[in-house]
Amino acid sequence: MTSDPYGDVGALARLLLSGDRQALAKAITLVESTRADHQDSAALLLDLVATGRKHKQPALRVAISGPPGVGKSTLIEALGLFLISKGKQVAVLAIDPSSPVLGGSLLADKTRMNLLSKDPHAFIRPSPSSNFHGGVAVATSESVLLCEAAGFDPVLIETVGVGQSEVEAAFLVDIFVLLLPPGGGDELQGLKKGVLELADVIVVNKADGDLENLALATAASYRAAMALTTQAGMKTHKVSVLSLSALEKKGIQSLWDTIEIHHHSLVKNGQVGSKHDAQAEHWFWQSLEHQCIEQLKASPRIRKITAQLLHSVRNRELSGRAAALKVLSSYLPNEK
Amino acid sequence: MTSDPYGDVGALARLLLSGDRQALAKAITLVESTRADHQDSAALLLDLVATGRKHKQPALRVAISGPPGVGKSTLIEALGLFLISKGKQVAVLAIDPSSPVLGGSLLADKTRMNLLSKDPHAFIRPSPSSNFHGGVAVATSESVLLCEAAGFDPVLIETVGVGQSEVEAAFLVDIFVLLLPPGGGDELQGLKKGVLELADVIVVNKADGDLENLALATAASYRAAMALTTQAGMKTHKVSVLSLSALEKKGIQSLWDTIEIHHHSLVKNGQVGSKHDAQAEHWFWQSLEHQCIEQLKASPRIRKITAQLLHSVRNRELSGRAAALKVLSSYLPNEK
Repeated sequence: MTSDPYGDVGALARLLLSGDRQALAKAITLVESTRADHQDSAALLLDLVATGRKHKQPALRVAISGPPGVGKSTLIEALGLFLISKGKQVAVLAIDPSSPVLGGSLLADKTRMNLLSKDPHAFIRPSPSSNFHGGVAVATSESVLLCEAAGFDPVLIETVGVGQSEVEAAFLVDIFVLLLPPGGGDELQGLKKGVLELADVIVVNKADGDLENLALATAASYRAAMALTTQAGMKTHKVSVLSLSALEKKGIQSLWDTIEIHHHSLVKNGQVGSKHDAQAEHWFWQSLEHQCIEQLKASPRIRKITAQLLHSVRNRELSGRAAALKVLSSYLPNEK
Repeated sequence: MTSDPYGDVGALARLLLSGDRQALAKAITLVESTRADHQDSAALLLDLVATGRKHKQPALRVAISGPPGVGKSTLIEALGLFLISKGKQVAVLAIDPSSPVLGGSLLADKTRMNLLSKDPHAFIRPSPSSNFHGGVAVATSESVLLCEAAGFDPVLIETVGVGQSEVEAAFLVDIFVLLLPPGGGDELQGLKKGVLELADVIVVNKADGDLENLALATAASYRAAMALTTQAGMKTHKVSVLSLSALEKKGIQSLWDTIEIHHHSLVKNGQVGSKHDAQAEHWFWQSLEHQCIEQLKASPRIRKITAQLLHSVRNRELSGRAAALKVLSSYLPNEK
């Protein structure tokens, strides 16, 4: 053992593969680390874990996405407790590249997933720290594999459907669930183009109390819209639409049945394997970009070349772009 | 003249500096271009433009940020028309890294800033295409300089206050205006930690009709909260809080007066220069990262090394991270 807490990566991998939750938490912290001297340990851990469970079934991976305030946490709490009651071990990861950048805040985080977070059959991990910027999604893709290796199945990914994060979430999962409020229209303003097209399952939440009828009507109108786009050949896959009440835990079984039907059809058509291949390739490229930036920022040679140019940039004698191109032409290998 | 429409960058720079709007639009398209053969032209254009207006006053740059649906476009329309009535030429840029990633959509864009977009004294440019991903904010930072060079002052930056974009917007501007709805509480859920800390001016919109009193009360409570945080030493700068109605164009003059007071105090304390220096340095690093990724993706050598490794990645014999580290160690210069 060295003084580095990640010194014995082999032991960490073995513990994790045996289902040890503390080892899982520690392993995720390792893949989220930006320390240069942790990068090789993280890569080794991932390789050991991959080898350790090479011939096992992959876990079912489900994204739960939607605009702020739609009730994602409430749904995940309800769905997670339902799955645990069926004997499953549930992991919940959050992906949110918009997580705080500056320290402190006037707004406090709400207590979320209160019961699920206390359940011994659930593993909940919030978004990686924003220090990791470009690498947030890469780290989450690795955390999915770690959760799977520790025996959690399904792995649920929570993401806010307002930005790039849900596109990245689609690269993490088998099934993408989009949660929407009753009403549509103005509520959809914050929802970006393209998000609807990622969805395998559209869920209208808050089908309870005064909003119940509106939720049913909203689901019906999405169902009609989806049928139209499928007819028009705009959709390459079937989309299911349903309404439920996360708050009153109504419709949770039906949501899970729908997710499983979609998953079975993927498995039956051999699409899970090709999806996972494409995803592995995607995350390789993302990882390549992220690691390249990290090495660039840590490079003494870059610092040296930069020091001379930054003076001209500050004096507006040289644009930032021109300076960047100059730095790269003397740093990256010449391929011309 | 070559067949490349950007062949004569010198002529484009001269036209832009003379205030030609078509040249400005073309110049922005150039800096937004991801084509490898446009990168040097773009850098040259930026250098020519910078040299051309080296001794002129910089334009006042203002960010207008806030959650979806708060009325940013309505406010920018009202503010823009007000400024034009005072004899100003107004540019409006949008920064939105969450712009559509997949083609097509079920949700149509609303017609926005209807009057302002037709006004000959306004220049409005929507977000750069998402093809540009990591480079959206870099391109916008360059577009600000181009608008300024074409004689537009102020330059307004619209950004959705739900993610990383408003942190990037803060690096683009002198004054950061945060637009919030009346009420707070739940409406602030979608607003990320840290955004409040970026604000120089907090504006509660919709002080009209039934919401007028609530808007006034909300502004008062933010004012009290800001006074508290300033007292506690948590804020390094003064924050102004006001309410207005963008819809009824009430309070627009007062908003502009507030922005100018903040700006004068920056100028008086010599902070504009140091702010612009720090921003230029920030965008240099962002540009460096972005250009590095672009060159990495276009590199034939990377493709060649990668081809051998991707097979193992797809077979889960090698993690994406381990493969990425291998690729980089044989591509980037060895500094050890």
